[in-house]
Amino acid sequence: MKTYLDCIPCFIRQTLETVRMLTGDEAVCEEVLRRVLKLAACMDMQRPPPEMARKIHRIIREVSGIEDPYREVKERFNRLVLDMLPDLEKRVESSPDPFDTAVRLALAGNIIDFGTPGKVAEEDVLETVEESLVAPIHGWSPARMKPVVDRAASILYLGDNAGEIVFDRLLIEQIGRGKVTFAVRGGPAINDALQADADSTGLSDMVSVIDSGVDAPGTPLDLCSPAFKQTLSESDLVLSKGQGNYETLSDLEKPVFFLFRVKCPLVSRHLGLPEGTLVAEGRNIKGPS
Amino acid sequence: MKTYLDCIPCFIRQTLETVRMLTGDEAVCEEVLRRVLKLAACMDMQRPPPEMARKIHRIIREVSGIEDPYREVKERFNRLVLDMLPDLEKRVESSPDPFDTAVRLALAGNIIDFGTPGKVAEEDVLETVEESLVAPIHGWSPARMKPVVDRAASILYLGDNAGEIVFDRLLIEQIGRGKVTFAVRGGPAINDALQADADSTGLSDMVSVIDSGVDAPGTPLDLCSPAFKQTLSESDLVLSKGQGNYETLSDLEKPVFFLFRVKCPLVSRHLGLPEGTLVAEGRNIKGPS
Repeated sequence: MKTYLDCIPCFIRQTLETVRMLTGDEAVCEEVLRRVLKLAACMDMQRPPPEMARKIHRIIREVSGIEDPYREVKERFNRLVLDMLPDLEKRVESSPDPFDTAVRLALAGNIIDFGTPGKVAEEDVLETVEESLVAPIHGWSPARMKPVVDRAASILYLGDNAGEIVFDRLLIEQIGRGKVTFAVRGGPAINDALQADADSTGLSDMVSVIDSGVDAPGTPLDLCSPAFKQTLSESDLVLSKGQGNYETLSDLEKPVFFLFRVKCPLVSRHLGLPEGTLVAEGRNIKGPS
Repeated sequence: MKTYLDCIPCFIRQTLETVRMLTGDEAVCEEVLRRVLKLAACMDMQRPPPEMARKIHRIIREVSGIEDPYREVKERFNRLVLDMLPDLEKRVESSPDPFDTAVRLALAGNIIDFGTPGKVAEEDVLETVEESLVAPIHGWSPARMKPVVDRAASILYLGDNAGEIVFDRLLIEQIGRGKVTFAVRGGPAINDALQADADSTGLSDMVSVIDSGVDAPGTPLDLCSPAFKQTLSESDLVLSKGQGNYETLSDLEKPVFFLFRVKCPLVSRHLGLPEGTLVAEGRNIKGPS
């Protein structure tokens, strides 16, 4: 997906919000903002938005000197969802259709995103869980997805945000730990999950965890490590979480399910779906479903 | 008033909104946006926001080839308020305090602003009239303003937006036509009133109308014409309408009343007043009041 002109005011607003969250030093904020404006003036609109976000967050880290600006936010949401986990596990186990419930909870977790407009509060997560259990899912129903998932011998699960990855544990249990490789980002990218988050949330004890090799809030393949691309090419199926992965992998020529919440007006317009819609979009899926 | 960092995302958003209103040609929108981003990257934050707005709207006019992008909007709001005028005149005449009512209506008219967030609809104007007649006014009450206005032998009335200037007619009648000179902008600046608007709304038949000599949505004195500055310096009192004039003239060393609605979060924070507040701020006023 290319970048829309409408993404640019959003990038600029997001830049100032992030840097203001990190420091009260106006000189730092001003330097970041000026550098991002200069960058935006020359950006390649044919590239997907997460590539620009990567560059912006690199500038923020460089100028502020803070290596992982969202570290505290990420830990807070990891803990929040770990605290919810026993209850969520019970809901999946006691559900008449555990796979359906697990897909819905994985979609609910995608609310924990600090890269899209509007801040996420802890209460939002609880509310979103309840909504997601009953909301319609646009595209593939969990019941249609299940045989495709079952047929795949190896699945690359592309994670998105910290906190959200705890919800992903529920779906991985339903899929079967043995055939899943979980991918995190290769370096700080907003509140996206890193190896440290996989470790602290128990994911690393369940499945093999790799990283994309790139500090982007998405998966821009040109920039990913050879090892990551190798794993991707060897997987039968990709489960891709979140808008950032969707935006960067919309041309992927492999069987893939994109699982995400519509979280910005541009993606909403691009897909013709209201913000907040739960999406399970299958591409290049062969065989019966 | 200097420019805040928070003004910048607003400038960028406003740029895209304006150029999208003018053309469906994405290439034009992209060129404008890139040029404005480059400009914003290097802007002097010590200058007031209307100076940046002037540069942005010059770029929009230059790239789009449209000489006065808000011409139609301005004519529409001039007509709207001219249609309301007989009724408004009756309300002033039948009021127990016609000066108070006229100040309130002049403040109500300041809602017609396309330079601040949120578009103005025609219904908003009617609603604002009713609200403004009863809302508290921050600063100087009309009753305190009146003797100051009465004492002044010559008043320079700095207009703001098209449509709004029809409301200003009511206050000018209360002040006395003979001692008022009315100032419009020297060239297109968002929906700010020009000489053509003063002519089409009957203001030019009531009072002497001059222009600032500059196409800014405010009055940046360094850039104004010598003739305008001469009139300003010879006036006993300035009545300054709107945020743009306030932002550019906050250091003016003359007796002045700033009359405006608080219309953006930054001015709201700067003044410590909620958005929507009606302000009548007197500065350098000598003698009894």
